[in-house]
This record gives sequence, structure tokens and C-alpha cells, in this order.
Amino acid sequence: MAKPFKTIGLIGKQKDPRIAESLQQVADFLVAKGLELVIDQDTAALFPSQHWQAVPRHELGQHCDLAIVVGGDGTLLHAARNLADSGIPLLGIKLGRLGFLADVLPETLDTDLAQVLEGKFREEERFLIQAELEREGKSYLIGTALNDVTMHIREVVRLIEFETYINGRFLNSQRSDGLVVATPTGSTAYALSAGGPILDVNLNAMVLVSICSHALSNRPLVIDADSVVEIVVSEHNTTPGQASCDGQPGIALEMGDKVKIYKRPGRVRLIHPAAHDHYSILRAKLHWGRKLE
Amino acid sequence: MAKPFKTIGLIGKQKDPRIAESLQQVADFLVAKGLELVIDQDTAALFPSQHWQAVPRHELGQHCDLAIVVGGDGTLLHAARNLADSGIPLLGIKLGRLGFLADVLPETLDTDLAQVLEGKFREEERFLIQAELEREGKSYLIGTALNDVTMHIREVVRLIEFETYINGRFLNSQRSDGLVVATPTGSTAYALSAGGPILDVNLNAMVLVSICSHALSNRPLVIDADSVVEIVVSEHNTTPGQASCDGQPGIALEMGDKVKIYKRPGRVRLIHPAAHDHYSILRAKLHWGRKLE
Amino acid sequence: MAKPFKTIGLIGKQKDPRIAESLQQVADFLVAKGLELVIDQDTAALFPSQHWQAVPRHELGQHCDLAIVVGGDGTLLHAARNLADSGIPLLGIKLGRLGFLADVLPETLDTDLAQVLEGKFREEERFLIQAELEREGKSYLIGTALNDVTMHIREVVRLIEFETYINGRFLNSQRSDGLVVATPTGSTAYALSAGGPILDVNLNAMVLVSICSHALSNRPLVIDADSVVEIVVSEHNTTPGQASCDGQPGIALEMGDKVKIYKRPGRVRLIHPAAHDHYSILRAKLHWGRKLE
Amino acid sequence: MAKPFKTIGLIGKQKDPRIAESLQQVADFLVAKGLELVIDQDTAALFPSQHWQAVPRHELGQHCDLAIVVGGDGTLLHAARNLADSGIPLLGIKLGRLGFLADVLPETLDTDLAQVLEGKFREEERFLIQAELEREGKSYLIGTALNDVTMHIREVVRLIEFETYINGRFLNSQRSDGLVVATPTGSTAYALSAGGPILDVNLNAMVLVSICSHALSNRPLVIDADSVVEIVVSEHNTTPGQASCDGQPGIALEMGDKVKIYKRPGRVRLIHPAAHDHYSILRAKLHWGRKLE
Repeated sequence: MAKPFKTIGLIGKQKDPRIAESLQQVADFLVAKGLELVIDQDTAALFPSQHWQAVPRHELGQHCDLAIVVGGDGTLLHAARNLADSGIPLLGIKLGRLGFLADVLPETLDTDLAQVLEGKFREEERFLIQAELEREGKSYLIGTALNDVTMHIREVVRLIEFETYINGRFLNSQRSDGLVVATPTGSTAYALSAGGPILDVNLNAMVLVSICSHALSNRPLVIDADSVVEIVVSEHNTTPGQASCDGQPGIALEMGDKVKIYKRPGRVRLIHPAAHDHYSILRAKLHWGRKLE
Repeated sequence: MAKPFKTIGLIGKQKDPRIAESLQQVADFLVAKGLELVIDQDTAALFPSQHWQAVPRHELGQHCDLAIVVGGDGTLLHAARNLADSGIPLLGIKLGRLGFLADVLPETLDTDLAQVLEGKFREEERFLIQAELEREGKSYLIGTALNDVTMHIREVVRLIEFETYINGRFLNSQRSDGLVVATPTGSTAYALSAGGPILDVNLNAMVLVSICSHALSNRPLVIDADSVVEIVVSEHNTTPGQASCDGQPGIALEMGDKVKIYKRPGRVRLIHPAAHDHYSILRAKLHWGRKLE
Repeated sequence: MAKPFKTIGLIGKQKDPRIAESLQQVADFLVAKGLELVIDQDTAALFPSQHWQAVPRHELGQHCDLAIVVGGDGTLLHAARNLADSGIPLLGIKLGRLGFLADVLPETLDTDLAQVLEGKFREEERFLIQAELEREGKSYLIGTALNDVTMHIREVVRLIEFETYINGRFLNSQRSDGLVVATPTGSTAYALSAGGPILDVNLNAMVLVSICSHALSNRPLVIDADSVVEIVVSEHNTTPGQASCDGQPGIALEMGDKVKIYKRPGRVRLIHPAAHDHYSILRAKLHWGRKLE
Repeated sequence: MAKPFKTIGLIGKQKDPRIAESLQQVADFLVAKGLELVIDQDTAALFPSQHWQAVPRHELGQHCDLAIVVGGDGTLLHAARNLADSGIPLLGIKLGRLGFLADVLPETLDTDLAQVLEGKFREEERFLIQAELEREGKSYLIGTALNDVTMHIREVVRLIEFETYINGRFLNSQRSDGLVVATPTGSTAYALSAGGPILDVNLNAMVLVSICSHALSNRPLVIDADSVVEIVVSEHNTTPGQASCDGQPGIALEMGDKVKIYKRPGRVRLIHPAAHDHYSILRAKLHWGRKLE
């Protein structure tokens, strides 16, 4: 069988020198296998003595056919957003605790990588969502998210008032700390902490989860992922708000602002070791019950 | 425009003489419009003096091209299960409070019916699920559900232990009061009381909601509706259990029993007045916030 | 029977000219009954032509033996904090929707007030809590709260890490959006939105409710109100935090800061019409079920 | 220091021969320390060759000054109910996983027991509650509970309708799967699975937790433990119900039945090793976060 990948891009967690050792281990392994390497420019700064080609992160996809990301779920989220249009698959190597996205552990790194490079892997696709701000008749891109777009209070602990629309149809108004709109990938992240359900990763759906809603009968709503969600901040609202993608610093919202959230074209391709089982990750991370004897 | 319906089947809430008046009002209206009527045999018993053709409920679909159901959501669930294979649409007239399924109110009955009979209506499709018992190598049909299949404790207030599988993959084991597997239609019924999310009615998904799980990190899981869910009662379980469809009296479960749940072929067609808006029903029934001024 | 109150203090919602009419109605009624009036200085600004004695809010308690507060629960919270040491009772007149604290409605104002002035009323006591910041060996008063002291993220939507201690005993560490420490009075305010239980108003207890905890097995904890709660922001925490009393603008927290929360000496005395029933307010505001027929 | 205990009563988990070894270990240890033993009659049946005095469980308190219970929380609950009036303290030895009540582990049995027998222990008190049935003017004792009294559906998965009163004041009516009334001890048992808060063990309070309430705005309510709770099954209710103490087989309820729940006189005395820390048990059992480094 032909080798599935020839040039590998390397991305490490930003500004974290602790990953240098793992990155070196990965690099040594790949070089020994006769593969070409390119490295993300920011990550290269952690390897002063290396001599691989360094390129800006968002251009990495043009230079390799697999990106290996060393860090945690946050690093993988960042890489996924940056490489969204490149079409190259991502493989996540987790430092520390098991992640939902980065599921190769340092302990089994060599075996897992060897298998992947021989073509023994599972590939799955995740979709991204995008948030747009509409203010005074103009549109601005807020950002792209693999996990979630969140509308949230800022600065003070006081309810914000807004309306929600699905495909132009009025859903409800609410006073709450905010609203998370999450993909299946994000359903195990912030949306879960806010009380949302878990969406099976292959489901073409999004979930809307209110944060600390004043109305006690508010419940998460799961909708088709091809829907357009609109959040309109009340004209009378005086609580400062913000809109944020994947928990990144967001933008400040003004009264009457509309945040529009919808699926982004293209997919993120995730590569997992062949034995990957998403349910076993759920069981491990959420302390769920194992098989009965 | 041609009349969309020529013969109307009438179904009333069982053993409830209070519906006689509404049924008569509906019947008079339909007769005045020159339509043919057939009536469900059980319902006919409430009209000693009527002379329409009475047929068993499950045969009603062969004799009419629209079934009008007078009662509540429970009556409509019952009719939907009975007419699942007939392909005829159902229209629900609600007595008392607004229902999620039966959304024509007696107050607007004449106007709404007139519109529907002229072809001004919204039709939507809902899917049913089916539950099967596997015991000692044999399979038995438990029943059909429009809302949910529930595995639950019976007789005593003590946790039952079981494993859950999705498409043959092990999900988790748990000790709880039971598990609800609900359709989008059922997501606003028992599953909601048990802590589940609301699934948009057009979503091709099911939700698994544990009831009073001993593990506090248990969360509802939304999966593709084309999945097969299997619930296996622990071999060591001593708590009596039951499996039930749409809250109907169910069957007693034994240790080692497997309950298999999957989508049933065919769809239920629901007819609503043209102005029907499912979100407005959600807002009304769940006391959600209205449009801001 | 002797009149229970002779001089009445008047407090209105700040910067809201809409309350002028109600305040005037109250004032006219009281003057007609032969009572003396003093008025809060800020409120007096809304009555340019009045001639009552105007005093700063926190001194009002020295000049009257009952304070009547016209506004909503927020106004009453504010007055209660300001008059905490005065020992005079408060009566809340609600504009708009029914409040948990301000439960006299404009429609029944005259009847209710007449009864109260004749000594026909119910008095109940609520306790306040206080928050203190310990930073680098020094202590600073953060504020006083009738509802709750909240430690919360600020600016970004990202978990904050902290430890909690009860009476010096370590309870747990958590990553979450924050923690609400609420009195029984506050248990129906923000703590309820965050998922907390309702504490009966006469209970000598506080409840700790985590906001969007990353650990799914986190649950509200109800403790004796004479306990001291300490929240210690992690030394490694990089998420901006804040501490806030009753949702007022709070103070920014730094890594290693400790927020200490404990019961404040003294009680707030609330006056209600004789027919007041806290459970009926709960039923009305939370859409709970009424008596069965 | 004088020895605090001279005669020890032994109680083992009923009908479980696996505990014989642990019981023998405990007995050998106590005999070696020169203590007298009496043994619960049912437990004695597991030791055919022993020669200690065997007495019925509920009389055990008259023959010893400490009861050692070997089993799990269920065994300790059973012993506590049986010895409620005796005033003797209980010490629980846990087989298998750590319990909330039985917190001495077999691994540290000898050390822990040695300390306890030297007077180095912590004693704490828990209260019991009692349930009474009122039917057609007569009263019947349902039972005693250390954890909870539960009113619950029986046989079918369908909501039961009832009203709740606190000290004779109407709280609300609801349709749900039932209601748990739990002590602080029981707040980490079934009530927690049903969505209730944790009550600190020394709190003089009870919590009412609805099970799968149809009204989504239902919330747990914490009340003073000296309150009387009354649950009245609707006259129109047709769903079979039951009342149960600590999850034991309960009694069937009829339409119009009233279940009355109140604190039982007397206290259960629990003995723990000196290093016992209830919060550390909570952290261990609920997977809560440990101290930060």
C-alpha cells in the first residue's frame, strides 16, 4: 500500500516550552520514517536549532498533506480554524490529560503514529460554524468556531436581554447570562457545562444552550446544522455583552446588534488511531460506567 | 382548487363522554360541507343515535382520506400508532389546554377546519420508533411509539442496572430509574421532564435521557434516528423493570433481557392550520419569553 | 391599638421618573392619615415641588420608623443594604410585575397600606451577608448583600480556577464560570438561574451554586448560615475574575486573591400585608401548580 | 483514659456470605482486645461455629455500647432504623467501594478500630424521619428513614398528581414521577440522583425534590427539619402510587391518601475514625477537584 502521507506539518501549543520534548520526539520519529517536515512559524521559535521549512500557520496546508498538532484540545481547535480551508487532515497528540479531539497519548505515540503512517487510521469529519455581526446595516465577520459561538455578558454579573430566531422564525426572548450555539464537537465543551446534551459527533445538528436563564423552563434546543441562528440584543438592554468563538477574546456588543451564526462551508478532517472509539473517550472523561462483568 | 379531502374519519378520546359535544360540532360542520364521514367503532358508542359507518380504529385508514382526532395529545398518539401504516394524515382537535400535537382549539374550530378543507394547511411528517424484546434467543415486538420507548423500574424505588449500545457499540453501563429513548415528537413529553433537550421536530434524531442516574455526570445523548439502540438489563440486576411505549402499560423485564429500539418504516402525517407555528406552541406551553417591544 | 408607625420614610427607584405618580399616591395617602414623611434625597429630586424633609438614604433610618420603598426587588435590595444597621422595617411597593420582596401591588395599595398602618401586617426577618477581599495580607470590605455574593469571570468566556473552603475546611477546587453564595432571600434570584435549590426564607442557611462547572458532578451545597466561606483564586489562573454583591458592579480579582463570605450582624425587617403568603408568590412567579379541584 | 466501649454488637449485611471473612477479622480483633461481643441473630447464621450471644437486631442496643456494622450504606441504614431508639452509636465498615456512611475500609480496619476503641474518634449525629399514612380518617405508620421518604409511581410510567403542604400551608400541586423528602444524610442518595442539592450533614433541614416533574420550573425546596410535610394524592389520580422509606418495599397508595412526613424523636450516633472528613468523601465519590498545587 502506498504511503498516505508524504509531508507532515508540525504545530505545537503556542508559547508553551514544555511541548518541545514531545515535538522533538514526533519529529525524530517522522524523519526516521523518511518523511518531509514543515513547521508552523510560531512553533519553530521553540526549536532554535532546527532546520525545517517554517511557514505561517494558515499557509501550512499548502505545504503538507497531514498536520500533527501537539498540545491539547485548545491547540487543535486553533489549528482547525486556521487550516479550515486547506482540506488537509489533522492528528492531535495530547499532552497531559486525554482530550476529546487530541486523543493520541505520548505513551503510545510511536505505535499510533506508525499505524497512521501505514494508512491504518480512522478519519472523521467535523463541521465549523461562523459568526457574523450585523450592525447598522453592515456585516462584519466575528470569527470561525469548531466548538461554539457564545453570546455572553461582559464585565458585570447581570442578565442580558435578547431575542433568538431560527431561519428567520422567532423562537423566544430571554434574560440570561448568554447563549451558546455549539456544534456536535462543541457539545462536550462549554455547552455541556452550561447544561446542554451531548450530540453524537456525526450528527448534522447544532444545539442552543442558554446560560443561567432567568426563565426556569428554558431548555436546550437541538436544530438542524443547516439552520441560521440569529441573536438580537434588546434595544433596551443596558448590560454589556460580547460574542466569542471557541472561547477566544470576542467582540463587544451594542444594543440592537444582531449575531448571525451558520455552518461554514468545508469540513475539518480528523485522523484517529484505528482503535479510536469516541464512546470510550466519553466514558473516560465523564466517569461513565464501564461494561458490567 | 379540488377539495383535498372527501371522506373524513372521526376518532374521539376513549371512554370520555365529555367529548361528545365537540365531536358532534365537528360532525355537523363536516356534513354541512358535504363530506362523507366514517367513525371509529369505540367512538361511535358515544353517539347512540348516529348513523355513520363505524369501523375498527386500525381499519379507519382504508375508509377515509383524513382522520380528525378529538381529545388531547394522548388520543392523537394512540391514533397515530394505530394508523401508522395507512398513510392518511391526522388533524388533532384539542379539548382543554393546548397540546403539542392536537393544536386546533374548539374556539377556532370552524375557521380552522374550513381552511384545512379548502387546502390551506401545513403538513409535516413525524417518524415512529419500535421496540423489540430479545429474550433467550427469541424476538418479540413490544410496541410502536410516536413519543418514546422507556425502560423503567417497576414496583420498587430502587436503581436498575443496565448497559446501553448504539449500533452495536458499547456506550455505557448505568444504575438509574431507567432510560427514555425519544423521537423529536417525544422530546417535549416525558424525556423533557427527565431532563432532556428539545429536538426540533424536523430533525432526524433520537435522544437518550437517563432517569435519575446514579452517576451525576450522565447527560442526554442525541443520536442519528437511523441508529439502533440496545438496552441490556444486567444479569445481576434484581430490581424489577419494564419496557413501555408512549407511557402505555408495558412488559415486565427479566435479568439479561435486551430491548432493541429503532425507527419504524413509514411516517405519520400531521395536518395543522396554515398559521401553525411550532415555536409559538413551545413559547405558550413552556412560558417562554415573547417578542420584546 | 396604638399606631405602630408615626413617621414614614419614602424611597423610590433611582433615576426612574415613572415612579413619581405612585410615590405621590403613597405620599397623599400617608399625609391624609396624619403621618409625618421624610424622603430619600435622591428620590426627592423627582418631586421638585414637595416640601418634606429630605435626607441621605443611609441616614433615613434615624428619621422614621418605617421605610416604604417604591420600585422593584432591586430597589428594595438597595434600600435594605443601606438601612441594614438602622433596624427600621421596610415595606416594598412593586411597580410592574410581582416581586419576591416588594409584594404590595399598586392596585391594592390603599387597602394594604391602611391595614399595615393599623398594625395588621406580617413581619419577617432576613439576614445579610458580607464579602471581604484578602490580598497580600490585607483585608478590604467588598460589600454587603441581601441576595448573594458572586465570584464570576469577567471580560472573557473562559473558565476560572479556584478552591473553596467552608470554615477553613477544604471543600473542592473547580473550573467554572464562577460561584454564587446566596442567602435564602437570594435563593430565588441569580442562584436559582444557576441551578440552585430554593431555601425556605426562614432557614438559617446559605447555598453555594457553581456556574457552568466543568465538572459535571458538581452540585449545589447548602450549609449553615453561620459558616465562613472562602474562595481562593488559583495562583495559576489567568482568566480575569470579579467579586460582586447583589449583582452590583464588583471588584476585579487577581491571582491568589481570597474572597471571604459570612453572615453580617443584624437583620433586615420586611413588612408584608397580613395576607402575605410566600408560597403563593413562588407559585405565581414560577408557574407552579395551583390547588386541585 | 477509660475505654469508651466494653461490649460490641456485630451486625453484617443480610444474606451475604461474602462478609463472613471481614466479620471474623473484626471479631478476632475485638476479642484480642478483651472486649465482649454480642451478635445480631441474622448475622449469627453466617457463623455456624461461633459461640457469642445472639440477639434480635432491634434488641441489640440493650446488650452493647457500640454496634459495628459490616456491609455498605444499605446495611448501615437498616441498622440505624432498627437501633434508632437504643441510643448506642454505630460504626460502619465498608466492603467494596467507599460509602457515605460506612467509611472504615477493610485495608485500614485494624488501625482505625484500635483508635476508636482508645477513644480517638469523631462522633456525629443524624436525624431520622418518619412517614405516616392518613386514609379515611385513620393513621398508619409507614416506616422510618435515615435517608428519605419517597412517594413514587408504581407499575406504570405515567405521571401521578398530588398536592404538597408544609406545616399545613399549601405549597403546590404537581404531576410528576413522585417526590423525595430527604434528610441531609439522604441528600447524597436518591435525592441527589433526582436533581437535589447536597445538604451539609449537620444542617437541621430537609429537602423536597420532585422526580421528573411535568412543570419544568419545579425546583428542589429546602425547609426546616422541624416542618411537617404532607403529600396528598389527587382524588382524580388514576396512576398507581407508593410510599417508601429508604428505598425499602413500600405501601400502595390510593386516591385521596395523605402521606405525612416529619422528624422522628431521637438521633442516630455515627462513629468515624478521627481523621474522618465528610468533604473528602464527597470529593472522592463525586469526582470533585482536589487541592490545586
